[in-house]
Amino acid sequence: MSTITALETSDIRFPTSTMLDGSDAMNPDPDYSAAYLTIVTDSDDGLTGHGFVFTIGRGNDVQVAGIRALEGHLVGRDVEELLASMGATWRELVYDSQLRWLGPEKGVMHMAIGAVMNALWDLKAKRAGLPLWQLLARMSPEELVELVDFRYLTDAITPEEALQIFRAAVPGRAEREAQLFAAGYPAYTTTPGWLGYDDEKLARLCREAVADGFGQIKLKVGGDVDDDVRRLGIAREAVGPDIRIAVDANQRWDVAQAIEWMRHLAPFDIAWIEEPTNPDDVLGHAAIAVGVAPIPVATGEHGANRVMFKQFLQADALSVLQIDATRVAGVNENIAILLLAAKFGVRVCPHAGGVGLCEMVQHLSYFDFIALSGRRDDRMIEYVDHLHEHFAAPVDVHGGCYWPPLAPGSGAEMLASSRREFEFEAYA
Amino acid sequence: MSTITALETSDIRFPTSTMLDGSDAMNPDPDYSAAYLTIVTDSDDGLTGHGFVFTIGRGNDVQVAGIRALEGHLVGRDVEELLASMGATWRELVYDSQLRWLGPEKGVMHMAIGAVMNALWDLKAKRAGLPLWQLLARMSPEELVELVDFRYLTDAITPEEALQIFRAAVPGRAEREAQLFAAGYPAYTTTPGWLGYDDEKLARLCREAVADGFGQIKLKVGGDVDDDVRRLGIAREAVGPDIRIAVDANQRWDVAQAIEWMRHLAPFDIAWIEEPTNPDDVLGHAAIAVGVAPIPVATGEHGANRVMFKQFLQADALSVLQIDATRVAGVNENIAILLLAAKFGVRVCPHAGGVGLCEMVQHLSYFDFIALSGRRDDRMIEYVDHLHEHFAAPVDVHGGCYWPPLAPGSGAEMLASSRREFEFEAYA
Repeated sequence: MSTITALETSDIRFPTSTMLDGSDAMNPDPDYSAAYLTIVTDSDDGLTGHGFVFTIGRGNDVQVAGIRALEGHLVGRDVEELLASMGATWRELVYDSQLRWLGPEKGVMHMAIGAVMNALWDLKAKRAGLPLWQLLARMSPEELVELVDFRYLTDAITPEEALQIFRAAVPGRAEREAQLFAAGYPAYTTTPGWLGYDDEKLARLCREAVADGFGQIKLKVGGDVDDDVRRLGIAREAVGPDIRIAVDANQRWDVAQAIEWMRHLAPFDIAWIEEPTNPDDVLGHAAIAVGVAPIPVATGEHGANRVMFKQFLQADALSVLQIDATRVAGVNENIAILLLAAKFGVRVCPHAGGVGLCEMVQHLSYFDFIALSGRRDDRMIEYVDHLHEHFAAPVDVHGGCYWPPLAPGSGAEMLASSRREFEFEAYA
Repeated sequence: MSTITALETSDIRFPTSTMLDGSDAMNPDPDYSAAYLTIVTDSDDGLTGHGFVFTIGRGNDVQVAGIRALEGHLVGRDVEELLASMGATWRELVYDSQLRWLGPEKGVMHMAIGAVMNALWDLKAKRAGLPLWQLLARMSPEELVELVDFRYLTDAITPEEALQIFRAAVPGRAEREAQLFAAGYPAYTTTPGWLGYDDEKLARLCREAVADGFGQIKLKVGGDVDDDVRRLGIAREAVGPDIRIAVDANQRWDVAQAIEWMRHLAPFDIAWIEEPTNPDDVLGHAAIAVGVAPIPVATGEHGANRVMFKQFLQADALSVLQIDATRVAGVNENIAILLLAAKFGVRVCPHAGGVGLCEMVQHLSYFDFIALSGRRDDRMIEYVDHLHEHFAAPVDVHGGCYWPPLAPGSGAEMLASSRREFEFEAYA
């Protein structure tokens, strides 16, 4: 038996705004940040569990305070017990009624629970000596169903249906794992398309993306329609007709405006329009989906919880579902969302980038491919080439694909040296 | 000219869980709390602006951290400028893109903005020497429209439509104010119905509610259906056939379960079913509304923002809209929600209770009656008889009605002695 002895937190901020990396129509000057936590135990194995919430600067301290508020659920607790019943652990944190009032199940407190759950998953995977994706992909259908809380979901998917989905994917697990090692998992790149880049840099980065083997790029739009048309023209010319180009409005528009704006961009053969409006607006997205058809609508990186994703699927409000590793309450809730996507037959193309999101979310896609949807052909994971050097197990992306890591853990662990260097109070 | 010199915050918690006041099916042991702030200026008038977020205990410190994160937008700023353009001030806070990432527009950071906006409104009303409701009800339609951010709302209501609604209510403002002074504003009471009370206390409090002149009471339900049937029987017998009884499930059910459970409660002539399921579930509420008809569905106290309320109205998912003074981003956003309710012709019956919510939300109902919907006949404000003694201007509720305060301000100011006594670190 071992016990959690400490919840160590830190406020880590990278000064990315100085380079305009990550600039879009709603977020002109992000400082990519992590409200970071390490779970320390008294076990002889010396293993620690790492997790974080990705933020873009100011307020990262509030997110750290949210994580600290969960200390009472962790410190002094039996590690084996918490890790043996991750579904029960999730419910204990999410249904702390006093903390739940601060959402409920959304915003700072819900993301804090995500960071803690992800850190526990990191620890569990390290104890098993496996990367998280393999740990999950080797669990039985019954164990996987136990991880998911079906409260508020049963009008869309029941535990019995979930069990059938997992069971249907048992045959072929080994084959798909082998395919993953042999061929990787498709990636697309957002690196060329930040709004703050000039036209020359845009064209150069587009050409580099093609040379690097990516089959899809993504451009930020929504600042000015004439600029968007010009930039799309440059990008389309640079990549040629066979590379897909998605666009991302980062919530900039109202419903009618989204439909009108996209009329101007449609001639450039758009792979999807991402976050056209407010991420809470299920009905707005449904109206936009009709209005911009056949261009697919993509959203999810700001989807607050499984109840929101359920409704987007029920309302045909998205056709590309973009899970995020640190927005909802961790691995468990993302499995619920992946199940909903499978039930509704919608493809999942995770949001990544930021800091550490690529390292983390790839595990969920590999798990989905091997043990849940069984699909990879219609999916890809976002890739941005920032800040990977700060992680203990940086992603391996080459030839336009992610390649599965073998290092034990969830991918969340940031190098101690980077954590020290970019600790906010240290460089402020 | 004067300047904001300090943002003083405190973590105030009342140990209400020891009495089971406020216990319901999702919140068994709330400690009614306030993440409290005072805006201090260097003006000779000595006036301060007070606001808070209501929480139920743990995590109140996280909410205080959220408020503190807004200090940079306030301290050192010109007071007259902030107060003169409250619409612009709201947009500055809500569209701080780095802080917005933590929601967006939901949870801890959004409620923090609400507390700050409400404190600025308190200061503005005190400077005007008016209670907030009168300050608002005397503004011109043009000034009122300026307070509202229509981003994400224009598919449901435009600024032009809002202007028409306000203009239509200009005739009769003085008459309705006189009616308010003469006859008050209807209240209903939740005091009898907490789940933690025994049957004898329930019956006694029901009889007292009738004797006190209330036309409606509300009971918490959702723990156990047999208990609910028994308690409703006791309540119906105690109040007689002419007093309305609403029930509140506090988000306990899934969709099918809500419809089935309400089949058992329907014989008791139910005024409304409140929060039958997760507050994010627009489509779930719409399905429940059909399934429990003709019993009205009520919700809103956990409605995260105007975009959620817009959808509930678009989807016919509620027929009683329950605004809350401290859940959304303050007075401005509640005016947006009141406009949506007027546009869709839905009645507004505010959530109150907690700590200080009665003192605050009454101002919005009076304003709505005088200068927006013009309606009072189909509406009432929740009332719970807890913790009013801690406020500088406690509510006056008698004869089953709220009576409008004349003290300048928003009602949020808690007595300094109470703030000291219940400061969390002080009594911990």
